[in-house]
Amino acid sequence: MKKINTSPISGMQELLPAAAATFEKLKKKISDIYAAHGFLKIETPTIERCEILLAKAGGDTEKQIYKVVKTAESQEEADQALRFDHTVPLARYVVEHENDLTFPFKVSQIGRNFRGERAQRGRFREFYQCDVDVIGRGNLPIAYDADVISTLLDAFASFELNTPVLARINNRKILSGMLEAFELSEKAGEVFDIIDHAEKVSPEITEEALKELGIEEVKIATILKFVEIHGSRDNVVGELRELGIENEMFEEGIAELEKVLGLLEADGRGGEIEADMKIVRGLDYYTGTVFEFNLPEYKQIGSVCGGGRYENLAGHFTDQKLPGAGGSIGLTRLFYVLAENNLVKSQEEKPVDFAIIPITDAEIGFALKVARGLRAEGETVTTVLTDKKLGDKLKYAASVAAKGIVIGETEAQTGEYQVKEFH
Amino acid sequence: MKKINTSPISGMQELLPAAAATFEKLKKKISDIYAAHGFLKIETPTIERCEILLAKAGGDTEKQIYKVVKTAESQEEADQALRFDHTVPLARYVVEHENDLTFPFKVSQIGRNFRGERAQRGRFREFYQCDVDVIGRGNLPIAYDADVISTLLDAFASFELNTPVLARINNRKILSGMLEAFELSEKAGEVFDIIDHAEKVSPEITEEALKELGIEEVKIATILKFVEIHGSRDNVVGELRELGIENEMFEEGIAELEKVLGLLEADGRGGEIEADMKIVRGLDYYTGTVFEFNLPEYKQIGSVCGGGRYENLAGHFTDQKLPGAGGSIGLTRLFYVLAENNLVKSQEEKPVDFAIIPITDAEIGFALKVARGLRAEGETVTTVLTDKKLGDKLKYAASVAAKGIVIGETEAQTGEYQVKEFH
Repeated sequence: MKKINTSPISGMQELLPAAAATFEKLKKKISDIYAAHGFLKIETPTIERCEILLAKAGGDTEKQIYKVVKTAESQEEADQALRFDHTVPLARYVVEHENDLTFPFKVSQIGRNFRGERAQRGRFREFYQCDVDVIGRGNLPIAYDADVISTLLDAFASFELNTPVLARINNRKILSGMLEAFELSEKAGEVFDIIDHAEKVSPEITEEALKELGIEEVKIATILKFVEIHGSRDNVVGELRELGIENEMFEEGIAELEKVLGLLEADGRGGEIEADMKIVRGLDYYTGTVFEFNLPEYKQIGSVCGGGRYENLAGHFTDQKLPGAGGSIGLTRLFYVLAENNLVKSQEEKPVDFAIIPITDAEIGFALKVARGLRAEGETVTTVLTDKKLGDKLKYAASVAAKGIVIGETEAQTGEYQVKEFH
Repeated sequence: MKKINTSPISGMQELLPAAAATFEKLKKKISDIYAAHGFLKIETPTIERCEILLAKAGGDTEKQIYKVVKTAESQEEADQALRFDHTVPLARYVVEHENDLTFPFKVSQIGRNFRGERAQRGRFREFYQCDVDVIGRGNLPIAYDADVISTLLDAFASFELNTPVLARINNRKILSGMLEAFELSEKAGEVFDIIDHAEKVSPEITEEALKELGIEEVKIATILKFVEIHGSRDNVVGELRELGIENEMFEEGIAELEKVLGLLEADGRGGEIEADMKIVRGLDYYTGTVFEFNLPEYKQIGSVCGGGRYENLAGHFTDQKLPGAGGSIGLTRLFYVLAENNLVKSQEEKPVDFAIIPITDAEIGFALKVARGLRAEGETVTTVLTDKKLGDKLKYAASVAAKGIVIGETEAQTGEYQVKEFH
């Protein structure tokens, strides 16, 4: 027969059952923690009109989009595409259903998104994003920024990783205010970008990049000092004040950052949070709080979660101002890096709790009854129904289940049986 | 501003949070029951190569397929499409990972599939299918057919619908054997199709359709009698024998049907199962057992679940014979018809268990602590962080949560607080 390539398409994660169980467990933990924090779960369609998806996007995103074309249609007619994140569909959803929602709307979305990126190791074209957002109507108190970060920290805590997680938190107004004080606002985009990359290069390269923008040396010196500021709330606020910058937005940013960190401290957070002036979330649309989670012992992994405050969710779809705070865990990539670095407890146990093994067909009836009883107690149970010799049945049972119960004539008659642990 | 259409694309289900919670609950119940019966959950990519998807399909399926096209690509180059069911990707998965799987492979898949059908009420272009399959290598005992049906019956039982569910079971070999005895095998396709539609038309129309095939009257009389046979195992077997047909395949079909029904009875099934000669599963690739679930009090809804036995899962991808038994719940359509007929308990309670309401910002710290404590006990908890008057905060709390806890100065100082039930 013609040989067909049965591998999944490149850039798509496909897991064997044991790994799939571990992935599913993480997904469920995220879902449970989001619900525990009062976020309501919704799902939006995978396919959206291009008009919606591209209202805001541009550049790389547009190039990476997967258009969908029905067979009867020509590509030019195609006005639908696969969503590339949850934020644009959420904006459409909130505008469409505004009158049926209660604001602040605490919402979570867990689902697959698609980007036709160049395929490379650890990059996925289909990937799960697990988002939480709080959307206000007109305004949204800054305290919700902390609510989002706290929820995401709890999600990571539930993973029981064998390495610490650090939430690095900043506020874009601090940097914007400093640049305003320096009369560099028109270069803000370039400077944001340089700081966003500062972590990956030496201070000399950052300095050089700033020089190339024609910024005065004394201001560059302050910016370089600024970039290095990170740590606990009190230390960071102190060091920022020492920069001697007088600017309203700068002060507003510090006040917001203090408030967010203060709330997280009040929520019992200590070593797992830090203020960090290097965090910018470069290309995103954030306007205040920004944050990123890292695994400090595995710096090469980079960010494992990110988010922030945006002043207007749906400016392209409505005149109603809808400010929000949100964050997202990219679960497909996260699972990949956690597994690669052996950081997540895999579902080591057998996938099923019990295998019930009737010796002959005559005992299947009682075997089914035993299985039903165990399921009612919350156990997962498979009944071995193969027409093989007992030895083969036991071998199969041991490969799928943690414990086995053999049902022969005696067991079926007496109703008594023994549980055998497989090792 | 330019007015953009924010409705979801036609044919895509989009639910408000309360309905989404009910949908999610059904999905979780299905997932839990599948796991309880020892099925291992996997996910395959949403996008597959056309070569895979179209290896077997043709006709309507091919016309309904959504191709995906990257912006840089022309439509002619596009060799990828969205999956339209779970069976084809499963066949690819089993062949690709054969050496890493244990057979019989009990597997479940819950996810979204896509068909660009003509949009109409109750028909969806994006829909959840919830599949269970048992795949054997070389052979698979008939007992697994009952295992699949039993699992699906338990899934429906978990929904706690306020109307009964009936599993109607047949075996295609019975009909095929009768047609063989009648020397009508070359017309089997047409006759299968007529019987598949017999339920929706009068006996006269069925008779007329059989006459048009040029079948002798005496044989038509038997076929018409055959079609009406349904009921309990003993009755049905008796009535089939009374038809006086002598054919090996006919006998084999009866024996298999008896075995499947017998196992389901041994598993405690009574009124919720029935043998029914009208069940054919027309266009599908089933070779033995076929079944369909209906809600007898709501005949107009039609089938709510279906499946059967197939002799070879992946004949287009491998020479290895992989027989299987499987079934599927089309959850998106099911949810739609259940909601339309008011058959499913909606998530009537408030979406969140508790709302914690700090009166001023000074009490947020203690409010967060109370929230954390309740979450540790398994409750879902939202903290009301809006900067509104207490009355507005309470109104918001009552709209999202079942119970409220107001935290004022006294509560924060004493650590004691009262729980208020919202109505």
